[in-house]
Amino acid sequence: MVYEERTAIPVSEAIKRVMQFTKKGEKEYIHIDEAEGRYLAEDIIADHNIPPFDRSPLDGFAIRSEDTFSASSTNPVKLKVIETVGAGSVATKKVQPGEVIRVMTGTKLPDDCDAIAQFELTTESEEDGQAFITLKRPFSSGDFVSFEGEETKKGDLLLSAGTKIHAGVVAVLATFGYKDVPVVKKPVIGIYATGTELLELDEPLAPGKIRNSNAYMIQSQVRQAGAECVYFGQLVDDFNQSYVAIREAIEKVDVLITTGGVSVGDFDYLPEIYKKLGATVLFNKIAMRPGSVTTVAEKDGKLLYGLSGNPSACYVGFELYTRPWIKSYLYSNKPHLDWTKGKLGKDFPKPNPFTRFIRGRVSFEDGMITASPVGMDKSQVVTSLAKSDVLIALPGGSRGYEAGDVVDILFLQREGRGQPLEEIKKTRKDSE
Amino acid sequence: MVYEERTAIPVSEAIKRVMQFTKKGEKEYIHIDEAEGRYLAEDIIADHNIPPFDRSPLDGFAIRSEDTFSASSTNPVKLKVIETVGAGSVATKKVQPGEVIRVMTGTKLPDDCDAIAQFELTTESEEDGQAFITLKRPFSSGDFVSFEGEETKKGDLLLSAGTKIHAGVVAVLATFGYKDVPVVKKPVIGIYATGTELLELDEPLAPGKIRNSNAYMIQSQVRQAGAECVYFGQLVDDFNQSYVAIREAIEKVDVLITTGGVSVGDFDYLPEIYKKLGATVLFNKIAMRPGSVTTVAEKDGKLLYGLSGNPSACYVGFELYTRPWIKSYLYSNKPHLDWTKGKLGKDFPKPNPFTRFIRGRVSFEDGMITASPVGMDKSQVVTSLAKSDVLIALPGGSRGYEAGDVVDILFLQREGRGQPLEEIKKTRKDSE
Repeated sequence: MVYEERTAIPVSEAIKRVMQFTKKGEKEYIHIDEAEGRYLAEDIIADHNIPPFDRSPLDGFAIRSEDTFSASSTNPVKLKVIETVGAGSVATKKVQPGEVIRVMTGTKLPDDCDAIAQFELTTESEEDGQAFITLKRPFSSGDFVSFEGEETKKGDLLLSAGTKIHAGVVAVLATFGYKDVPVVKKPVIGIYATGTELLELDEPLAPGKIRNSNAYMIQSQVRQAGAECVYFGQLVDDFNQSYVAIREAIEKVDVLITTGGVSVGDFDYLPEIYKKLGATVLFNKIAMRPGSVTTVAEKDGKLLYGLSGNPSACYVGFELYTRPWIKSYLYSNKPHLDWTKGKLGKDFPKPNPFTRFIRGRVSFEDGMITASPVGMDKSQVVTSLAKSDVLIALPGGSRGYEAGDVVDILFLQREGRGQPLEEIKKTRKDSE
Repeated sequence: MVYEERTAIPVSEAIKRVMQFTKKGEKEYIHIDEAEGRYLAEDIIADHNIPPFDRSPLDGFAIRSEDTFSASSTNPVKLKVIETVGAGSVATKKVQPGEVIRVMTGTKLPDDCDAIAQFELTTESEEDGQAFITLKRPFSSGDFVSFEGEETKKGDLLLSAGTKIHAGVVAVLATFGYKDVPVVKKPVIGIYATGTELLELDEPLAPGKIRNSNAYMIQSQVRQAGAECVYFGQLVDDFNQSYVAIREAIEKVDVLITTGGVSVGDFDYLPEIYKKLGATVLFNKIAMRPGSVTTVAEKDGKLLYGLSGNPSACYVGFELYTRPWIKSYLYSNKPHLDWTKGKLGKDFPKPNPFTRFIRGRVSFEDGMITASPVGMDKSQVVTSLAKSDVLIALPGGSRGYEAGDVVDILFLQREGRGQPLEEIKKTRKDSE
């Protein structure tokens, strides 16, 4: 077998090629108790005002403000309490001048009342079984009233399609009666692992063998990204059987991921399988570390991701190229990893000609963002992934980096951005 | 009923009183496919080296470095390929001087070889069916070899108890054969809503009534914090029935949350119920907005949270006082909301004598953290919660705040801190 020269493309170009094949998922309804982490399939529009009526935001008394205009500490006003109305009930009596209604937080403001005097500003008394209050200050019309529609008006856009559902979103959905929530159906991501060196988790270690961590890691990444995954198991070390397995798997999924088998080794069958399938290879080398062998092919509009068999490379390849496809399917308009500039927390002296995505940990101190590499940073390393919450993007070049250098930081566990970091950087560069 | 004066305590003091009643959950085992979002119940220690053997990190040839010491472009060395070994297999032949073995990424380094020459540095040829390679540079012993234990040594602490499981953690667990993962059993949090104004989600709106958003929001917050929730429904508007319901619910849960009913309104039964239960009220007023009525009582070591019926107050009360209890139960040593200093993105002119937790959105630009208030900021407001990912903590005082002011920012969706912001601030102040 002759060593094959591949042409490496920039990260931004690889992302662009992948994102040409985005699709939008269908809508389905699920119960609000199961909605967290899902993505809204529709804009949510207010079908009523919030509050839905003028109400008291406090425990106190609904008053006619004009009764208090002359009130002061030297000239207190005494008013008659004619009814008590709890939240959820409505006043049954008509309020005449000099009269008030005792109300609770959330009670609908009684007709003919126009202000609220909370308990703290009120002195209560009783005469012959009749309750009174005394006020020592004037109130203006509207004082301490929550007005209908002051928070949200009927017709307002509350939430956009593509919003990820969390507790705050649930609160709004419940307020507007969404017992069943319109969400985007999850895309189904199939996974095949390759590599005869891979042991199942409960097999004992053996010479030359390692445990199959990628398949479990990728399944977890798929679920974290909001998709459903189907793990098909390990491909056997036989070209034809592998070809048939992949051809059949494609029919059952929206996207197929394989781990391993995309490099230039003798048993790296994926390139030949893509060829035999008639799939178009979008790229098979990216100018990045780790994950330079990340390959993506397209067959009848479906993407086949050939991720590296090296854990860190596999992880990074998924986050940069598969995650945005999934998020876009889920209507997110921020499909890419969120990123920012920040300071490098530790020296990273090793130079490299390629863009590197270093596993790191972010810290926030006094308004500044700092990210520090964690552990060992080779593509086959797995332990550093457990401690990382960011990737530190270091452009290629002939020198290393020092603590304090300004670097780009990609967040692994935040919702995302509309454009990938690499695209922005490219645009900046193009316009320079 | 006479208006009751309550004594407000500082946020830091309220957190301290709650955290005196933390407990640690028991251990259970779950399948690795269901482990995301759970918390490790044990330290995970490496039971073997990673890599488990010296191996090739590349596709290439395992060589004896001494064979190449004299190699140069003018004096190339030609070596005989005696075997091809894929990853997962081990060499069967013994390598003699002048011989090499073709190896793939991940292949165990054959005995008697001590370096790897990758394909890119190799010229291949064939003579009479025998493969050879030519090298034009010398290799040192160890070149391009991944050594046993270079990433992790047997006995190393890989992951600490209390670590939240995400994809990177899954990768490590899989590597070390954890098909079943030791995680902390989730605490069971019971929820009762109070308020006769509350409609179920599928009921039509009616005068004076609103939909019950708190119960769904709190359930979602409970799940997000990593606990299991049991929603018992709404308490009826009757003291004795409510008392019995709560007394019975306590027996079934680790913590009981009620929403509403803790203020000074006529139908706010919770204070009386705590009394009748013989529960100790830890506090019933906090110097904060929203959520000043947040009440916590303790009965036989179990906490009863009386959260406000106002959505924003309820939300904030949970995040500041219930979440850390849950995280601590899950062995997290960072139970409190993560926080940092940052810039206020917009004016917030209204002054207030109390510490406020303003719903906001964070942005990262060029290494600086900025948070801006979103929407309306009253305690009864619900819509702003959907757009918030931080709380902006503004100390009480006689003036408002301007864009650019340095403020404290609490992250709603990050893993957390060991000490609450308020505790740190208090300590700083004490030492000043």
